[in-house]
Amino acid sequence: MNSAPKASVARLLQEVWSLGDVSAVSDLIAGRYTVFHDPGDPWDGQILDRAGYVTRVLQSRAPFPDQSFSICEMLEEKDRVAVTWRWKGTHRLPVAGIAATNRLVHMTGATVYSFEGPSIVGHWQVTDRLGVFRQLS
Amino acid sequence: MNSAPKASVARLLQEVWSLGDVSAVSDLIAGRYTVFHDPGDPWDGQILDRAGYVTRVLQSRAPFPDQSFSICEMLEEKDRVAVTWRWKGTHRLPVAGIAATNRLVHMTGATVYSFEGPSIVGHWQVTDRLGVFRQLS
Repeated sequence: MNSAPKASVARLLQEVWSLGDVSAVSDLIAGRYTVFHDPGDPWDGQILDRAGYVTRVLQSRAPFPDQSFSICEMLEEKDRVAVTWRWKGTHRLPVAGIAATNRLVHMTGATVYSFEGPSIVGHWQVTDRLGVFRQLS
Repeated sequence: MNSAPKASVARLLQEVWSLGDVSAVSDLIAGRYTVFHDPGDPWDGQILDRAGYVTRVLQSRAPFPDQSFSICEMLEEKDRVAVTWRWKGTHRLPVAGIAATNRLVHMTGATVYSFEGPSIVGHWQVTDRLGVFRQLS
Protein backbone atom coordinates (compact mmCIF):
# COMPACT_ATOMS: atom_id res chain seq x y z
CA MET A 1 0.00 0.00 0.00
CA ASN A 2 1.50 3.31 -1.08
CA SER A 3 1.71 6.33 1.22
CA ALA A 4 -0.41 9.31 0.17
CA PRO A 5 2.52 11.07 -1.56
CA LYS A 6 3.54 7.91 -3.41
CA ALA A 7 -0.08 7.30 -4.40
CA SER A 8 -0.22 10.86 -5.78
CA VAL A 9 2.93 10.31 -7.86
CA ALA A 10 1.56 7.00 -9.15
CA ARG A 11 -1.73 8.68 -10.05
CA LEU A 12 0.07 11.59 -11.77
CA LEU A 13 2.11 9.23 -13.94
CA GLN A 14 -0.84 6.96 -14.72
CA GLU A 15 -3.87 9.23 -15.09
CA VAL A 16 -2.28 12.47 -16.26
CA TRP A 17 0.90 11.51 -18.10
CA SER A 18 -0.02 8.03 -19.40
CA LEU A 19 -3.74 8.43 -20.10
CA GLY A 20 -3.77 12.18 -20.72
CA ASP A 21 -6.63 12.76 -18.28
CA VAL A 22 -5.79 16.27 -17.11
CA SER A 23 -8.79 16.42 -14.77
CA ALA A 24 -6.56 15.00 -12.01
CA VAL A 25 -4.16 17.96 -12.26
CA SER A 26 -6.26 20.08 -9.91
CA ASP A 27 -6.19 17.29 -7.30
CA LEU A 28 -2.47 16.65 -7.49
CA ILE A 29 -0.59 19.76 -8.62
CA ALA A 30 -0.21 22.97 -6.61
CA GLY A 31 -1.29 26.28 -8.10
CA ARG A 32 2.37 27.27 -8.30
CA TYR A 33 4.54 24.48 -9.74
CA THR A 34 8.28 24.76 -10.35
CA VAL A 35 10.20 22.79 -12.97
CA PHE A 36 13.42 22.91 -10.95
CA HIS A 37 15.53 20.92 -13.41
CA ASP A 38 14.50 19.02 -16.53
CA PRO A 39 17.08 19.32 -19.34
CA GLY A 40 15.39 19.09 -22.72
CA ASP A 41 11.95 19.94 -21.36
CA PRO A 42 10.70 23.21 -22.92
CA TRP A 43 9.46 24.28 -19.48
CA ASP A 44 12.80 23.67 -17.70
CA GLY A 45 13.27 26.32 -15.02
CA GLN A 46 9.76 27.75 -15.33
CA ILE A 47 7.07 28.29 -12.72
CA LEU A 48 3.64 27.14 -13.91
CA ASP A 49 0.10 27.67 -12.72
CA ARG A 50 -2.33 24.78 -13.19
CA ALA A 51 -3.32 25.94 -16.69
CA GLY A 52 0.36 26.09 -17.58
CA TYR A 53 0.88 22.60 -16.21
CA VAL A 54 -2.05 21.30 -18.30
CA THR A 55 -0.58 22.94 -21.39
CA ARG A 56 2.73 21.24 -20.66
CA VAL A 57 0.99 17.84 -20.38
CA LEU A 58 -0.97 18.27 -23.59
CA GLN A 59 1.94 19.60 -25.65
CA SER A 60 4.37 17.01 -24.28
CA ARG A 61 2.02 14.10 -24.98
CA ALA A 62 1.02 15.25 -28.50
CA PRO A 63 3.96 13.66 -30.38
CA PHE A 64 3.48 10.36 -28.49
CA PRO A 65 -0.31 10.11 -27.91
CA ASP A 66 -0.20 6.50 -26.65
CA GLN A 67 2.69 7.17 -24.26
CA SER A 68 2.77 5.28 -20.97
CA PHE A 69 4.94 5.30 -17.87
CA SER A 70 5.67 2.30 -15.67
CA ILE A 71 7.17 2.89 -12.26
CA CYS A 72 10.29 0.93 -11.30
CA GLU A 73 10.84 2.16 -7.74
CA MET A 74 9.70 4.91 -5.39
CA LEU A 75 11.56 6.25 -2.34
CA GLU A 76 10.01 8.73 0.04
CA GLU A 77 11.69 10.94 2.61
CA LYS A 78 10.25 14.01 4.25
CA ASP A 79 8.52 16.10 1.59
CA ARG A 80 10.11 14.32 -1.38
CA VAL A 81 9.30 11.28 -3.50
CA ALA A 82 11.95 9.92 -5.89
CA VAL A 83 10.65 7.72 -8.67
CA THR A 84 12.50 5.75 -11.34
CA TRP A 85 10.46 4.90 -14.40
CA ARG A 86 10.32 3.41 -17.88
CA TRP A 87 8.42 5.12 -20.69
CA LYS A 88 7.28 4.10 -24.14
CA GLY A 89 5.31 5.82 -26.86
CA THR A 90 4.68 5.78 -30.60
CA HIS A 91 6.14 8.78 -32.41
CA ARG A 92 3.13 10.22 -34.30
CA LEU A 93 3.95 13.95 -34.65
CA PRO A 94 7.19 15.94 -35.09
CA VAL A 95 9.29 16.32 -31.97
CA ALA A 96 12.47 18.42 -31.58
CA GLY A 97 12.56 18.93 -35.33
CA ILE A 98 12.25 15.20 -36.16
CA ALA A 99 9.30 14.28 -38.40
CA ALA A 100 7.01 11.49 -37.22
CA THR A 101 8.69 8.09 -37.57
CA ASN A 102 5.72 6.04 -36.29
CA ARG A 103 8.28 4.08 -34.28
CA LEU A 104 7.60 2.75 -30.79
CA VAL A 105 10.37 4.29 -28.70
CA HIS A 106 11.50 3.55 -25.15
CA MET A 107 13.08 5.78 -22.52
CA THR A 108 13.99 5.70 -18.85
CA GLY A 109 14.25 8.48 -16.30
CA ALA A 110 14.28 9.47 -12.67
CA THR A 111 12.28 12.24 -11.03
CA VAL A 112 12.21 13.76 -7.56
CA TYR A 113 8.83 15.32 -6.77
CA SER A 114 8.54 17.96 -4.02
CA PHE A 115 5.40 18.17 -1.90
CA GLU A 116 3.82 20.87 0.22
CA GLY A 117 1.16 19.03 2.19
CA PRO A 118 -0.79 16.87 -0.26
CA SER A 119 0.17 18.92 -3.33
CA ILE A 120 3.07 18.39 -5.71
CA VAL A 121 4.88 21.72 -6.03
CA GLY A 122 7.70 20.85 -8.42
CA HIS A 123 10.13 18.32 -9.81
CA TRP A 124 13.82 17.71 -10.59
CA GLN A 125 14.23 15.22 -13.42
CA VAL A 126 16.74 13.57 -15.71
CA THR A 127 15.74 11.44 -18.70
CA ASP A 128 17.81 9.44 -21.15
CA ARG A 129 16.92 11.67 -24.08
CA LEU A 130 20.00 10.56 -26.05
CA GLY A 131 18.48 7.08 -26.15
CA VAL A 132 15.30 8.54 -27.68
CA PHE A 133 17.17 10.53 -30.33
CA ARG A 134 19.11 7.41 -31.34
CA GLN A 135 15.84 5.47 -31.75
CA LEU A 136 14.42 8.27 -33.93
CA SER A 137 17.53 8.66 -36.13
CA MET B 1 24.38 14.61 9.71
CA ASN B 2 23.99 11.88 7.10
CA SER B 3 22.83 8.36 7.95
CA ALA B 4 25.44 5.63 7.37
CA PRO B 5 24.09 4.72 3.90
CA LYS B 6 23.95 8.37 2.83
CA ALA B 7 27.46 8.92 4.18
CA SER B 8 28.63 5.93 2.12
CA VAL B 9 27.07 7.35 -1.05
CA ALA B 10 28.61 10.76 -0.36
CA ARG B 11 32.01 9.13 0.21
CA LEU B 12 31.69 7.04 -2.98
CA LEU B 13 30.94 10.10 -5.09
CA GLN B 14 33.63 12.23 -3.44
CA GLU B 15 36.58 9.92 -2.78
CA VAL B 16 36.15 7.32 -5.51
CA TRP B 17 34.40 9.04 -8.40
CA SER B 18 35.56 12.66 -7.90
CA LEU B 19 39.09 12.17 -6.56
CA GLY B 20 39.78 8.78 -8.15
CA ASP B 21 40.93 7.27 -4.86
CA VAL B 22 39.90 3.66 -5.41
CA SER B 23 41.16 2.56 -2.00
CA ALA B 24 37.68 3.27 -0.61
CA VAL B 25 36.06 0.74 -2.97
CA SER B 26 36.74 -2.15 -0.61
CA ASP B 27 35.03 -0.27 2.24
CA LEU B 28 31.95 0.74 0.26
CA ILE B 29 31.28 -1.73 -2.57
CA ALA B 30 30.16 -5.35 -2.15
CA GLY B 31 32.16 -8.17 -3.71
CA ARG B 32 29.29 -8.71 -6.13
CA TYR B 33 28.00 -5.43 -7.62
CA THR B 34 25.22 -5.19 -10.20
CA VAL B 35 24.86 -2.35 -12.72
CA PHE B 36 21.07 -2.78 -12.89
CA HIS B 37 20.46 0.02 -15.37
CA ASP B 38 22.83 2.66 -16.73
CA PRO B 39 22.22 3.44 -20.41
CA GLY B 40 25.44 4.51 -22.10
CA ASP B 41 27.67 2.98 -19.43
CA PRO B 42 29.84 0.23 -20.97
CA TRP B 43 29.12 -1.92 -17.89
CA ASP B 44 25.31 -1.57 -18.12
CA GLY B 45 23.70 -4.85 -17.05
CA GLN B 46 26.93 -6.41 -15.81
CA ILE B 47 27.83 -7.95 -12.46
CA LEU B 48 31.24 -6.80 -11.22
CA ASP B 49 33.62 -7.98 -8.54
CA ARG B 50 35.67 -5.31 -6.73
CA ALA B 51 38.48 -5.47 -9.29
CA GLY B 52 35.89 -5.01 -12.03
CA TYR B 53 34.40 -2.04 -10.18
CA VAL B 54 37.86 -0.45 -9.86
CA THR B 55 38.45 -0.98 -13.59
CA ARG B 56 35.12 0.72 -14.29
CA VAL B 57 36.12 3.73 -12.13
CA LEU B 58 39.55 4.10 -13.73
CA GLN B 59 38.34 3.70 -17.31
CA SER B 60 35.31 5.98 -16.77
CA ARG B 61 37.41 8.74 -15.20
CA ALA B 62 40.24 8.60 -17.77
CA PRO B 63 38.65 10.94 -20.37
CA PHE B 64 37.74 13.47 -17.64
CA PRO B 65 40.57 13.19 -15.08
CA ASP B 66 39.46 16.26 -13.08
CA GLN B 67 35.82 15.18 -12.94
CA SER B 68 33.82 16.00 -9.83
CA PHE B 69 30.33 15.26 -8.57
CA SER B 70 28.26 17.52 -6.35
CA ILE B 71 25.22 16.09 -4.62
CA CYS B 72 21.92 17.95 -4.97
CA GLU B 73 19.64 15.78 -2.81
CA MET B 74 19.58 12.37 -1.17
CA LEU B 75 16.50 10.36 -0.16
CA GLU B 76 16.74 7.13 1.80
CA GLU B 77 14.14 4.43 2.26
CA LYS B 78 14.72 0.88 3.44
CA ASP B 79 17.81 -0.47 1.64
CA ARG B 80 17.92 2.25 -1.02
CA VAL B 81 19.47 5.71 -1.36
CA ALA B 82 18.41 7.93 -4.26
CA VAL B 83 20.80 10.74 -5.11
CA THR B 84 20.53 13.56 -7.61
CA TRP B 85 23.81 15.12 -8.68
CA ARG B 86 25.67 17.54 -10.90
CA TRP B 87 28.92 16.57 -12.60
CA LYS B 88 31.65 18.46 -14.42
CA GLY B 89 34.91 17.46 -16.02
CA THR B 90 37.46 18.57 -18.61
CA HIS B 91 37.48 16.37 -21.72
CA ARG B 92 41.15 15.29 -22.00
CA LEU B 93 41.00 11.92 -23.84
CA PRO B 94 38.68 10.46 -26.50
CA VAL B 95 35.28 9.35 -25.29
CA ALA B 96 32.59 7.52 -27.30
CA GLY B 97 34.60 8.14 -30.46
CA ILE B 98 34.96 11.90 -29.85
CA ALA B 99 38.55 13.19 -29.76
CA ALA B 100 39.59 15.29 -26.77
CA THR B 101 38.07 18.79 -26.94
CA ASN B 102 39.68 20.09 -23.73
CA ARG B 103 36.27 21.60 -22.95
CA LEU B 104 34.84 21.76 -19.43
CA VAL B 105 31.53 19.92 -19.73
CA HIS B 106 28.60 19.66 -17.32
CA MET B 107 26.06 16.90 -16.76
CA THR B 108 23.32 15.97 -14.32
CA GLY B 109 21.99 12.59 -13.29
CA ALA B 110 20.09 10.58 -10.73
CA THR B 111 21.12 7.28 -9.18
CA VAL B 112 19.43 4.79 -6.86
CA TYR B 113 21.99 2.78 -4.86
CA SER B 114 20.98 -0.56 -3.34
CA PHE B 115 22.47 -1.68 -0.04
CA GLU B 116 22.90 -5.01 1.69
CA GLY B 117 23.91 -4.12 5.22
CA PRO B 118 26.66 -1.49 4.98
CA SER B 119 27.70 -2.44 1.44
CA ILE B 120 26.51 -0.97 -1.84
CA VAL B 121 25.46 -3.88 -4.07
CA GLY B 122 24.32 -2.10 -7.21
CA HIS B 123 22.79 0.94 -8.85
CA TRP B 124 20.08 2.11 -11.28
CA GLN B 125 21.06 5.33 -13.00
CA VAL B 126 20.03 7.81 -15.67
CA THR B 127 22.30 10.62 -16.86
CA ASP B 128 21.71 13.44 -19.32
CA ARG B 129 24.24 12.10 -21.81
CA LEU B 130 22.62 14.01 -24.70
CA GLY B 131 23.63 17.21 -22.91
CA VAL B 132 27.24 16.00 -22.85
CA PHE B 133 27.28 15.07 -26.53
CA ARG B 134 25.92 18.51 -27.44
CA GLN B 135 28.70 20.19 -25.44
CA LEU B 136 31.31 18.04 -27.23
CA SER B 137 29.92 18.59 -30.76
